[in-house]
Amino acid sequence: MKDPLTIADWGEFGFIEALRQRLPEATDDLKLGIGDDAAWWSPLAGQGILTTTDMLVEGVHFDFEYTSAADLGYKSLAVNLSDLAAMGGSPSCVYLSLALPARLEKVWLESFVDAFLLLAKEYGVQLAGGDTVQADQMVISVTLCGLALKGKPILRGGALVGDDIYLSGSFGDSYLGLKLLQGDLQAPSALNESADFLKNRHLRPTPRVALGEMLAASGAVSAMLDVSDGVLADLGHLLTDSGGLGAELEVSRLPLSFAARDFFEADLVDYVALLAGGEDYELLFTASPKQRSKIETLAAKAVVELTRIGRITVAEGVFMLADGSRTALGARGGYDHFQHQGC
Amino acid sequence: MKDPLTIADWGEFGFIEALRQRLPEATDDLKLGIGDDAAWWSPLAGQGILTTTDMLVEGVHFDFEYTSAADLGYKSLAVNLSDLAAMGGSPSCVYLSLALPARLEKVWLESFVDAFLLLAKEYGVQLAGGDTVQADQMVISVTLCGLALKGKPILRGGALVGDDIYLSGSFGDSYLGLKLLQGDLQAPSALNESADFLKNRHLRPTPRVALGEMLAASGAVSAMLDVSDGVLADLGHLLTDSGGLGAELEVSRLPLSFAARDFFEADLVDYVALLAGGEDYELLFTASPKQRSKIETLAAKAVVELTRIGRITVAEGVFMLADGSRTALGARGGYDHFQHQGC
Repeated sequence: MKDPLTIADWGEFGFIEALRQRLPEATDDLKLGIGDDAAWWSPLAGQGILTTTDMLVEGVHFDFEYTSAADLGYKSLAVNLSDLAAMGGSPSCVYLSLALPARLEKVWLESFVDAFLLLAKEYGVQLAGGDTVQADQMVISVTLCGLALKGKPILRGGALVGDDIYLSGSFGDSYLGLKLLQGDLQAPSALNESADFLKNRHLRPTPRVALGEMLAASGAVSAMLDVSDGVLADLGHLLTDSGGLGAELEVSRLPLSFAARDFFEADLVDYVALLAGGEDYELLFTASPKQRSKIETLAAKAVVELTRIGRITVAEGVFMLADGSRTALGARGGYDHFQHQGC
Repeated sequence: MKDPLTIADWGEFGFIEALRQRLPEATDDLKLGIGDDAAWWSPLAGQGILTTTDMLVEGVHFDFEYTSAADLGYKSLAVNLSDLAAMGGSPSCVYLSLALPARLEKVWLESFVDAFLLLAKEYGVQLAGGDTVQADQMVISVTLCGLALKGKPILRGGALVGDDIYLSGSFGDSYLGLKLLQGDLQAPSALNESADFLKNRHLRPTPRVALGEMLAASGAVSAMLDVSDGVLADLGHLLTDSGGLGAELEVSRLPLSFAARDFFEADLVDYVALLAGGEDYELLFTASPKQRSKIETLAAKAVVELTRIGRITVAEGVFMLADGSRTALGARGGYDHFQHQGC
């Protein structure tokens, strides 16, 4: 095998691995660095300051053809809120850096900022700083800080064999929404309403902050992350970080939205594509079967549905259980920013 | 006057002002948001968590013609360290987000990261997270968190009439270095050594972290910022934020490096251009004349020279005192990322 020469060959995960190998041992105040949804810093003993950062690039993460300024302002904060939610954290301060083309219209930027600040207000987040620079291609970099309940976040690496696997909301909506927005999928006119729902799920994902906080407070959750790369890829991350475990998913339990079900029943998409599709920004978590009644009580209070979709196994790999059969699935759909195009 | 239509017309400062007007009142835990070198967040009473963020764009903030991967890795952290130094803060954790062209060579990125991490190690900073995405134009976004001594940073708005004005190191070196690197200024062969010094001052500025900490610990400083936009522009920020004051600078005291003096004496540059030139990353601060002996004691311990260059006046505007004359200077050189090109 030849030595990779460009970062496209190397890949994002190759780079991150090389970065990790270069890092000195963390000091005591940094409880968790690279690798989870957010970093965990404790400048004072018992303190859980969580920090997450995301970068969005024009033409890679968003397309002005179908993304309005307000959609983008909303989403650039929402994806970071989702990362904090995945740690069970409460968001506090946000830093917004923008690389903008000089020709950009003032009204566009005002609309972007208004949507960003409206969402910030809704979640009690304060814009505390940032930077604004000129560039040919728009790049948005958002860093969000928050606090972990009782100073201790929920990590992605805590799942145990036998744990139940749960998913909030539904999956694959954002994938379908993106296909519709890009024109790669045409909605039959009977499905126009479903199509609008799906597009909105792509453009305006709801960060599950209150749910994340509630799950953290319950003490019932063993591992959690948000679904940004796709259910399969993110489940893969959870399994790897939990020491190389496996999972069985019960197909009959997988929660499709009414809209995704419409497209599924019209044979316009299959389950695996929906499980591989990214950007749902739902929470995927695990809990011991002993916690089922507690989770059910929580689910009754949550504004979003919680579904038990499977369980953690000792055997590596992800399997689908349907009609008595057991089918192996690869970790298809792991999004790599340098080895795949689009999102 | 027509309504500005593009952000190039609007300008960075117009945008920031519009942003500020849109912000709700800060809650108690955010002591200081947009407007200083770093934000100041106190999740616990008396705590001073400082956060600063900078974005660097290929072709705007750096040019591969004369910037190596290692220079860029160094500088992208150094400018953030300088912002924390300007608050008197101690840096702790850093987040590095990179938008990279897919064609970029792996060895380039390794060299960038090695220089970034070497500087991080030197200043006791831990890389705690980030993001890596693909783009056509390289964009580097760095967010640095740290702690203020005794929970209270030094702000830029605390200068009082009669305060002395101090500057660390020298000024204008980075400006000359950039001109030399860009080929806009030719060094006579006798000045080759000076030219190398100046280019290095542009490519590898030394963040004055230990000095900032020492000044914060002394309790002697009334206002401080780092010189990124140029002495004149940054002094202007300090004066504005201190309630609209003025300043007198004594030309005979202004500290030129040996190298800048060489170029000055060869009539290749004037004082005002040096005062307007950006990116020195020295500390500019004020202190009551009562603190002179304390500052002198500190200066004797500091690794960089501290020079008293003038004093704060009640009359607005910046004046140069030389040979008994008093000349007004505008706030020339305030760098606006949308209204000026280059850096």
